[in-house]
Amino acid sequence: MSDQTNRQILLAERPKGWPDENTFQMKESPRPSPQEGEVLVRTVYLSVDPYMRGRMNDAKSYVAPFELNQVLTGGVVGQVEESKHPDFQAGDLVTGMMGWQDYSVLKGEELRQVDTRLAPPTTALGVLGMPGLTAYFGLLEIGQPKQGETVVVSGAAGAVGSVVGQIAKLKGCRVVGIAGSPEKIRFLKEELGFDAVINYKTDDVKQALKEACPDGVDIYFDNVGGEISDHVVRRINKYARIVICGQIALYNLDKPDEGPRVQTNLLINSALMKGFIVSDYQDRFKEGLVQLAEWVAQGKIQYRENIVEGLENAPDAFLGLFKGENLGKQLVKVSDIKE
Amino acid sequence: MSDQTNRQILLAERPKGWPDENTFQMKESPRPSPQEGEVLVRTVYLSVDPYMRGRMNDAKSYVAPFELNQVLTGGVVGQVEESKHPDFQAGDLVTGMMGWQDYSVLKGEELRQVDTRLAPPTTALGVLGMPGLTAYFGLLEIGQPKQGETVVVSGAAGAVGSVVGQIAKLKGCRVVGIAGSPEKIRFLKEELGFDAVINYKTDDVKQALKEACPDGVDIYFDNVGGEISDHVVRRINKYARIVICGQIALYNLDKPDEGPRVQTNLLINSALMKGFIVSDYQDRFKEGLVQLAEWVAQGKIQYRENIVEGLENAPDAFLGLFKGENLGKQLVKVSDIKE
Repeated sequence: MSDQTNRQILLAERPKGWPDENTFQMKESPRPSPQEGEVLVRTVYLSVDPYMRGRMNDAKSYVAPFELNQVLTGGVVGQVEESKHPDFQAGDLVTGMMGWQDYSVLKGEELRQVDTRLAPPTTALGVLGMPGLTAYFGLLEIGQPKQGETVVVSGAAGAVGSVVGQIAKLKGCRVVGIAGSPEKIRFLKEELGFDAVINYKTDDVKQALKEACPDGVDIYFDNVGGEISDHVVRRINKYARIVICGQIALYNLDKPDEGPRVQTNLLINSALMKGFIVSDYQDRFKEGLVQLAEWVAQGKIQYRENIVEGLENAPDAFLGLFKGENLGKQLVKVSDIKE
Repeated sequence: MSDQTNRQILLAERPKGWPDENTFQMKESPRPSPQEGEVLVRTVYLSVDPYMRGRMNDAKSYVAPFELNQVLTGGVVGQVEESKHPDFQAGDLVTGMMGWQDYSVLKGEELRQVDTRLAPPTTALGVLGMPGLTAYFGLLEIGQPKQGETVVVSGAAGAVGSVVGQIAKLKGCRVVGIAGSPEKIRFLKEELGFDAVINYKTDDVKQALKEACPDGVDIYFDNVGGEISDHVVRRINKYARIVICGQIALYNLDKPDEGPRVQTNLLINSALMKGFIVSDYQDRFKEGLVQLAEWVAQGKIQYRENIVEGLENAPDAFLGLFKGENLGKQLVKVSDIKE
């Protein structure tokens, strides 16, 4: 890129079903300049996350829809190019919600400094960012894991799921992960120490769950929805908690999502099912980050990142999320950190 | 009945779908006698409740199945005929889980005295018994109603639903009831003061809900399940609570219960859905009964009873629950209270 050009990826049309090349459009515009109180940030790492698919629809969801012909936005770690805000200076590494573009201008209040003393800057978009906090609050606050309980997590090798499983292990639970490739299965079992793993693409999920959860399911952390979740719900125990974090299997459906109703299962088990978004817990983010950073520093929580190079590859990286291509946190590297 | 004969209604076969005359069998046996520590109770009022349908299946549920060719059991208010337990004497009015029969023998510990100073003895099976407590704990503990919120209750004219709606009114909520006859609709609107009522048999439920809940639904107390509930779930607000108390629409289904999955709706609204059974709160029954009795004594909670005469009519009274025949608590009167 030229230092004076700002490449931007816009939402060109709202996808019906799966997004494709027509969904996105690359545009070039002049590099913006900060006004008083603002900061010019060069994008270093861009986060692509499943929830963004929902924002591409023009429908009520937990976050407002993206606007047509406007730049897409998501979590970014960037470097300050020029600051007109007293809290920031050129060279600082910062994070916030920014555009899928080379340069963003934000108010100082919309940014926070990235602390690289404990962990690399990419973790601000993963284990020490939104996905890590999602795992932390969803599992601990809604799931309420207790020693000896069985926790099933779907999307287990993803940025959220892999942290859920590791926290559950720290709490003394039996952890069963569901994922979709031999590489992910190996990672969960051998590197993260999950007690059992199920490859939903090759295993008979119903039978595999029965074997993996001989004492039933106390907590189900659901990142995927659909038929996989139907199987898990049928095996819940009395007083089970089902944490609805994502429904990635459904985000690209163009027909109504129908299946077995869960109500009778919840009724006969006095069980709970609860949806959430990480911002429900924003008053407590600091507490969560301190604990996660400690666990990461102690080596008790491991993380993986999958980094593709080049802003122009952000759409493909995003689409890869729904094809199950990423092991760990999916990032796009847009520029280098300058010393 | 003869004083020496004990008529009993047995579970003759497990119903598939709707129970019918083959489900039940009347048998006569000799009147039993109490041993030391036991009490002989003559059945005065018998409670028929929807949850009993689940116990007729040979399947895991929140209470153990009824056994084939054994007497059915349920809540009873009876009168002590003979006591070999120090806490009871002949003539006492007592309540407990007893058989669908003229006489039951129980241990003293399985009985409690019915206090008739505040309310008639039938209330021990209704507003001051299991249904009242179900409404109280389900609404207050899971629903957590707040002033100004909109509460929708299905099965609104039943023993549980009618109490739910009245407690919600006491908590300052807008209350919308769903029921199935003009008589029930009139009762809820004119006598209990519900803000809006929907007749699911004659109204367009989707449109009627839209009109009755202009600000969406904060709490849904679900006694019925099925399509009615699908419509309500589509209208929930952020942080809504859905209390799964019963699924009467489904109890007699002989095919899988399928419909729109609720997970996405729970996710985008950070909403909760929780099943329960009243015994989850048994440590706090006394607290609930004290409060309910106070509200009843103050005229703040009204109740209706629908009483049929004769043990032999218990099966029909039970089947009537699923046809929506009862307004308020359905009871069977088996004998008279003796002075």
